[in-house]
Amino acid sequence: MRQHAAGVAVITTRTARGDEPVGFCATSLNSVTLDPPTVSFAVATGSTSGAAWLTAAHGIVHLLRSDQTAVASAFARTGPEKFAGPVGWRWGPHGAPLLDGVLAWMVVRTRIRLVVGDHLLVLAEVQECVVEPGGAPLVYCDGRFHGLSGLFGGS
Amino acid sequence: MRQHAAGVAVITTRTARGDEPVGFCATSLNSVTLDPPTVSFAVATGSTSGAAWLTAAHGIVHLLRSDQTAVASAFARTGPEKFAGPVGWRWGPHGAPLLDGVLAWMVVRTRIRLVVGDHLLVLAEVQECVVEPGGAPLVYCDGRFHGLSGLFGGS
Repeated sequence: MRQHAAGVAVITTRTARGDEPVGFCATSLNSVTLDPPTVSFAVATGSTSGAAWLTAAHGIVHLLRSDQTAVASAFARTGPEKFAGPVGWRWGPHGAPLLDGVLAWMVVRTRIRLVVGDHLLVLAEVQECVVEPGGAPLVYCDGRFHGLSGLFGGS
Repeated sequence: MRQHAAGVAVITTRTARGDEPVGFCATSLNSVTLDPPTVSFAVATGSTSGAAWLTAAHGIVHLLRSDQTAVASAFARTGPEKFAGPVGWRWGPHGAPLLDGVLAWMVVRTRIRLVVGDHLLVLAEVQECVVEPGGAPLVYCDGRFHGLSGLFGGS
């Protein structure tokens, strides 16, 4: 799966006690179905975000821009200092941290949780979606960040 | 989710009766956990592949190269003629169709099926993985095919 390209997202929520922002860098975000609009993502059960998503009802999925590698790297690390890092944020809908300047963001509501090996797979319904004008996605593949090139047509 | 970039895969298996190859173009492929190595993908329940994956125990996940847009387009259409299309194939492990000349391919075994809206979410364990030398991944984003550009560092 190292050869598999994936858009880079930062997924945020708050701790079960509700007083701390949590977030992680995800390359496992996917659309599962459009009706109802449902995405999936996987989070390590042993992480702070994994613990939070065991109970979190809502969160925000942020798609990163190609110039936000520093944001991706910050949220790929462990520890609360990621929210003091290279991107501004504020408390957003449902009390989840909302990051500034991303490509697009979605408020999601947890529908199904599944423990698979050492990861929690979360299926969540998209309740609200905001696409910021301009910008291109950040992509992760084979251990590195990339942009997109070469439109090859398509549907 | 149109703004979300995703690697392009063709996922094959055979019909429940076992005598016909089936396959579809997936942009929903993801790694869920490495221990055990598990991927997920979503397939429309109303499609031929959806019907096959309701019972299929095994299949092959092919990651496409950036020059295989014709293969992606062929497998994005409905109908059995996709196997008479732009890519050669043979019967591979566990009787699943194995496509020629892809970036990488994995033999997978179904572990969990989940019906979510009008899609079937399949979680499958990777049993065997072959990465062909050279090549770069085909990426789909915002209705078009892309290649990768610009290595931005990373881990």
